[in-house]
Amino acid sequence: MKLCPPSGFRDFEPKEMILRKRIIDIIENCFIRYGFDPIETPAIEHWEVFEGKYGEEAENKLIYRFKDPWSNKIFALRFDLTVPMARFFAQRAFPLPFKRYHIGRVWRHERPQKGRYREFWQADADIIGSSSPETDAELIDLTIHIFEKLGFKNFILKLNDRRLLKGIFEEELRIKEVLQIYRAIDKLDKIGLEGVKGELEKIISDKIIVRKILEIISWEKDTDDLLEYISSNFLKNENVRIAINHLTEMLDLLSGRKSFLKLSLNLVRGLDYYTGPVWEVIISDLPLWSVAGGGRYDNLIELYSGKTTPASGTSIGIERVIDAGKEIGLFTTSKQTYTQIYVAPLSMEFYKFAWDIANVLRKNGFCVQIDLMRRSEKKQREYVSKKNIPIIIFVGKKEVKNKILTIFFRDAQERAEIPSANLINYLKEHISHCG
Amino acid sequence: MKLCPPSGFRDFEPKEMILRKRIIDIIENCFIRYGFDPIETPAIEHWEVFEGKYGEEAENKLIYRFKDPWSNKIFALRFDLTVPMARFFAQRAFPLPFKRYHIGRVWRHERPQKGRYREFWQADADIIGSSSPETDAELIDLTIHIFEKLGFKNFILKLNDRRLLKGIFEEELRIKEVLQIYRAIDKLDKIGLEGVKGELEKIISDKIIVRKILEIISWEKDTDDLLEYISSNFLKNENVRIAINHLTEMLDLLSGRKSFLKLSLNLVRGLDYYTGPVWEVIISDLPLWSVAGGGRYDNLIELYSGKTTPASGTSIGIERVIDAGKEIGLFTTSKQTYTQIYVAPLSMEFYKFAWDIANVLRKNGFCVQIDLMRRSEKKQREYVSKKNIPIIIFVGKKEVKNKILTIFFRDAQERAEIPSANLINYLKEHISHCG
Repeated sequence: MKLCPPSGFRDFEPKEMILRKRIIDIIENCFIRYGFDPIETPAIEHWEVFEGKYGEEAENKLIYRFKDPWSNKIFALRFDLTVPMARFFAQRAFPLPFKRYHIGRVWRHERPQKGRYREFWQADADIIGSSSPETDAELIDLTIHIFEKLGFKNFILKLNDRRLLKGIFEEELRIKEVLQIYRAIDKLDKIGLEGVKGELEKIISDKIIVRKILEIISWEKDTDDLLEYISSNFLKNENVRIAINHLTEMLDLLSGRKSFLKLSLNLVRGLDYYTGPVWEVIISDLPLWSVAGGGRYDNLIELYSGKTTPASGTSIGIERVIDAGKEIGLFTTSKQTYTQIYVAPLSMEFYKFAWDIANVLRKNGFCVQIDLMRRSEKKQREYVSKKNIPIIIFVGKKEVKNKILTIFFRDAQERAEIPSANLINYLKEHISHCG
Repeated sequence: MKLCPPSGFRDFEPKEMILRKRIIDIIENCFIRYGFDPIETPAIEHWEVFEGKYGEEAENKLIYRFKDPWSNKIFALRFDLTVPMARFFAQRAFPLPFKRYHIGRVWRHERPQKGRYREFWQADADIIGSSSPETDAELIDLTIHIFEKLGFKNFILKLNDRRLLKGIFEEELRIKEVLQIYRAIDKLDKIGLEGVKGELEKIISDKIIVRKILEIISWEKDTDDLLEYISSNFLKNENVRIAINHLTEMLDLLSGRKSFLKLSLNLVRGLDYYTGPVWEVIISDLPLWSVAGGGRYDNLIELYSGKTTPASGTSIGIERVIDAGKEIGLFTTSKQTYTQIYVAPLSMEFYKFAWDIANVLRKNGFCVQIDLMRRSEKKQREYVSKKNIPIIIFVGKKEVKNKILTIFFRDAQERAEIPSANLINYLKEHISHCG
């Protein structure tokens, strides 16, 4: 009997889930504050929905695809939340801009390794219907806000515009077809500059061009200086001009976020659907892990609706964020239960009394367990200690007779006897609510 | 291009999700208050995990199963949350009782129809490690508490014990093998008494026995009277004796819930793994829809761990609850956005000022949108009205010059001019926070 989940798939125990829920709550709250509303789409889509949207590698090697045994149709597990949203949006008529968020799992047949899973959660916010630089700026501002709220201090949002790179390539290299080149550059973090060189040499025979590409994507300057340098050299190119204008307007709005932003020509993002600004968030101590990413994809929705529909979005990798936070000591899984109070009947004859106490506490918002195994006081204490539940309320002969409750605060090792009637007020003063 | 989700799968728009999230929040809060902690398992399991756990029909007709093209292993989408939890638990050593909740989607290849989907969400709470009646009573108390919190007034929790029915069958019919009979009885709501008769006749040749089975499951009395009647006639049977004792102890603890409880011999639950008490919740105006169900399954975990491990759980059907609540007018999807405030710059020259206002509001907990499409005041008002956002803050020449803001409350059709510096306090007094 195979007891494990399939390779690359994971279980989450309570202590892990309590952390995950805290992280997801923070992200969801940020989305809502920025005016995004939730949608949900199915885990499974018709294969045709995905076909031709992501690029060759994703579609041939990474998407879980299977034949539905009943209908003989080809289904696939969703690879991201962006393409299903595009399909979803194309079916409907919402007032524009349509601002949606979606937090959910996606599946990719990656090689399982540290920080990379086959089932993982993304938290996406997208804005449909606007091509303005304000839109991209808002998404970037939101992304930075989220990482601040999560407690990260040292992180960088790398920014580029696919049109900027395309224009420079046009001017410097006379190259028009950039998609394959972008896919090679996208592997930089995984395979390094030498690796990218190898990939480029597979598709470009002229070694001088390969060397020039590597040179361009290695330009390193302060964001303003790099923009200035590109402006003064390539502004006659239309793609460069459009990108520079767009980026400049974005950066003006993001002036308060300057310390987090870095223009990086080596950032292209791997998926075919991006058309304009693209970004990725890197935690400074972990330079090879991108924890979030996004960009503009003005042509994707049209593939479903036939109608030009600009769109842009940002996506947080839940696992990446959690793994990164643990790695730098920001997050721990020290909390293993939400339970605040354990009610301990000292004999079955007091059980109904204890049961009623537990239920009154629950109705008043406390998170409560009661003995369910008819155990001795000692065994009950052992359980409470293993679960690290902060408070025990004992219900025995004395308590029932005198209508009092004995409350034991485990951390302080303090004991109090409280009249039953005062219990709720007493506890409200002594602990905060959960949930 | 197929634009729809596969048959039986659904998209959820924001107004639907806002309702769903409210419902799920209420349920999750109840779980936590009753001392349950969250776990998560993968969407996909090795087929062997499911094999032989649910019964023939479920396994052959209802489970989404596919061959992983890379490993050639057979995978399956989870059919419920109980069996994956059993597999999860068997791999680990937790202090007992282990109380977990899990809210997530499951997949079943049902015939799509009203209230029945191929992808749907379950909210499960289970208690592992205890065979006590208190355990089942707590799960039932929790279930009733949830339906009260959701706002349902008229509902019934039908209760039975598989051992009770088994004992009566042993005494009345000399039948030992009950699993096939239970599967037939379980179809009562779907196919009616005549249908069940037909199903029983397929497996039992003796028509007198079939008639007697139908008679027994039709016994209708007040819960106490029915227990009394069965006690006085069948107490010599061991299964009956065990079940009566267990049910009686449960009902003593649940004395405050009497009006919601009904002992129903025709309730068996369809899945093979149940061994003791079983229950289902029915909304009184919708007698054929069970909205929740559960029961004891003392032998399931042993199939994975080899160790006897009593367990019991309750499961809420999210779609069933929502569809039922809509049907009786308890739930509506009237809220289409969480956004409370729309910031309207009256020209691009005031955009940065408006942007900063929007971000200050967000930092203070308000849910805010700002124009992203460079629209006229009129067009912005139209958008706000379509989205039904309650408050607009205008930022124009007058406002920027005098450092004030014009706030418009749409419901009251009232306008106020507030100094920028007082904005947050003013709004905190006038609206409550979201999120």
